[in-house]
Amino acid sequence: MALQNDLFLQACRGVRPSRTPVWMMRQAGRYLAEYRAIRAKVSFTELCRTPELCAEVTLQPIDILGVDAAILFSDILVVFDALGVDVIFDPAPRIEQPVRTAADIARLRWGDPREACDYVFAAVRACKAALADRVPLIGFCGAPFTTLSYLVEGGGSRTFEHIKGLLFREPGVFHGLMEKITGLLVTYLQAQVESGADVLQIFDSWAGALAPEDYREHVLPHLDRLVRETQAATGVPVILFARGNANILADVATIPADVLGIDWTIELGAAIDVVGEGRVVQGNLDPTVLLSNPATIEAKTRAVLAAGRRAKAHIFNLGHGISKHTDPGLAKRMIEVVQGG
Amino acid sequence: MALQNDLFLQACRGVRPSRTPVWMMRQAGRYLAEYRAIRAKVSFTELCRTPELCAEVTLQPIDILGVDAAILFSDILVVFDALGVDVIFDPAPRIEQPVRTAADIARLRWGDPREACDYVFAAVRACKAALADRVPLIGFCGAPFTTLSYLVEGGGSRTFEHIKGLLFREPGVFHGLMEKITGLLVTYLQAQVESGADVLQIFDSWAGALAPEDYREHVLPHLDRLVRETQAATGVPVILFARGNANILADVATIPADVLGIDWTIELGAAIDVVGEGRVVQGNLDPTVLLSNPATIEAKTRAVLAAGRRAKAHIFNLGHGISKHTDPGLAKRMIEVVQGG
Repeated sequence: MALQNDLFLQACRGVRPSRTPVWMMRQAGRYLAEYRAIRAKVSFTELCRTPELCAEVTLQPIDILGVDAAILFSDILVVFDALGVDVIFDPAPRIEQPVRTAADIARLRWGDPREACDYVFAAVRACKAALADRVPLIGFCGAPFTTLSYLVEGGGSRTFEHIKGLLFREPGVFHGLMEKITGLLVTYLQAQVESGADVLQIFDSWAGALAPEDYREHVLPHLDRLVRETQAATGVPVILFARGNANILADVATIPADVLGIDWTIELGAAIDVVGEGRVVQGNLDPTVLLSNPATIEAKTRAVLAAGRRAKAHIFNLGHGISKHTDPGLAKRMIEVVQGG
Repeated sequence: MALQNDLFLQACRGVRPSRTPVWMMRQAGRYLAEYRAIRAKVSFTELCRTPELCAEVTLQPIDILGVDAAILFSDILVVFDALGVDVIFDPAPRIEQPVRTAADIARLRWGDPREACDYVFAAVRACKAALADRVPLIGFCGAPFTTLSYLVEGGGSRTFEHIKGLLFREPGVFHGLMEKITGLLVTYLQAQVESGADVLQIFDSWAGALAPEDYREHVLPHLDRLVRETQAATGVPVILFARGNANILADVATIPADVLGIDWTIELGAAIDVVGEGRVVQGNLDPTVLLSNPATIEAKTRAVLAAGRRAKAHIFNLGHGISKHTDPGLAKRMIEVVQGG
């Protein structure tokens, strides 16, 4: 069935739409009272595992803010169900037994994500049904390095000493794990598309943990494979968002992702200089700008919009997830400015 | 009196010395058993306030590892004694009452750091006496933005929402505080030089918290003033280390600091392209490389050394503080490689 609003999809396919489409990373989240009302009843984990509730929160920003795309409510770490690794959200994710030794690695299950994560695909179907083709639905996963980082660090990190220690001391083990995770993620994304996802986004949230030469040598080949195999297997556009070090942008841009996500640490115009005007870019307003006031938000939103005109197409977004302290009315103001209000 | 080893000082003054000098950020720290032995007896705060012990730990890496410069053992936040603001090290720094409201700001004392931080200057004198001119002594402070961030956030942060909220909502208040902190820091650095510091380093550890345009507009003018006034007041070389977003390097390089510190998120050769071959650079091996093995450390150290040859002069350092998990023997190996062993 045809989408009622396909501006976002047009941009993903490299066609500049009649106006710039907009959505926000983490748009279904704690800054919305309607989301908090649901979370008052169920834990984050229960929410991820309940397709009807996933659909409800996925649609909240569509109904409340009028964004041009929906993104599946889920978490990049639920894929660990296929490895037999439990994640606790407290609220930051934590793995009780991080994977650091040969024995830890030997215990990993490498199951079929189609079975282990069946609730994710049920959630995709529930979202599609609830959306009734109003806007496209984005599915997603963590990139191989980010996924492996959580597995080895056991949570977030400031220094990433465990994963980098593994990389520097035992590159063979590191690459073996990256290889297997990449294969798992291709299947995981493919199943999301089979369930109805229209576009996919890959989050390399911890790309900034590595020096540029190490990222290029040890991470980029796996990321490239993930993007290419996913494109070949699914036929849907892939957005690649490698966050945290804009110095690696030129390297990331060698990957033929349909859209390149740009974080807020680089001016969008400078990013377009790096990736070339022939690419589709997504981003990149600093989310803390939404903690200010209408005048500041308007000025900074217009500056990002103006910079985006030089790209092949531009999808307006924040340069990182929206803050839980954001006033939804101010987020709405940003969206109105983008949508021409 | 003439220094026995002035390689570091030559490089700071723009003269390429006979070999590349080397020191490490946080070189007096927990990775050394000798440091841990002292910390088993006194708290971090007591250590900072006891000049003889400061001198003892300041000299440990000189004696144990043979680095070419000493850096005063202290903390960038002790300057808050001049504001009447208490910091708890637990071990991360924490301020019980962050400065966020007009009433909070009105309570700040703005005392004379020469009096409030007298133990810092006593520590500088004790270090100089203990060093007996073996190597130069580096004094330091936090940059205005980093210092103000701690004051407003009340500690470290991932999102810097309070300080950025203040900047975006009340730029006048933000700039007033930056102005006053900058003046305080000039006095603080001047007193360190009067007590014997040979070189000064300014740490803008949270420079990466702001988007490039915001850093340029709201932070750079204060940083420029701090560097220029300090140079004029003291006559000693100033090293400027703005960490966390190599995209702002071109802007930082507009400041006439004698040395530009480079973090590990950019390749040193790329950094020299940005700042120009006429500048002195310091850096930038990823400190987690020291968690690997001699062969990896040697190869990566030689790559940084080779890149540094294109600069006017190069001071070898890590691109961030050394990890407490580092084997001192492996740090020693890096230092030997730099020193030609």
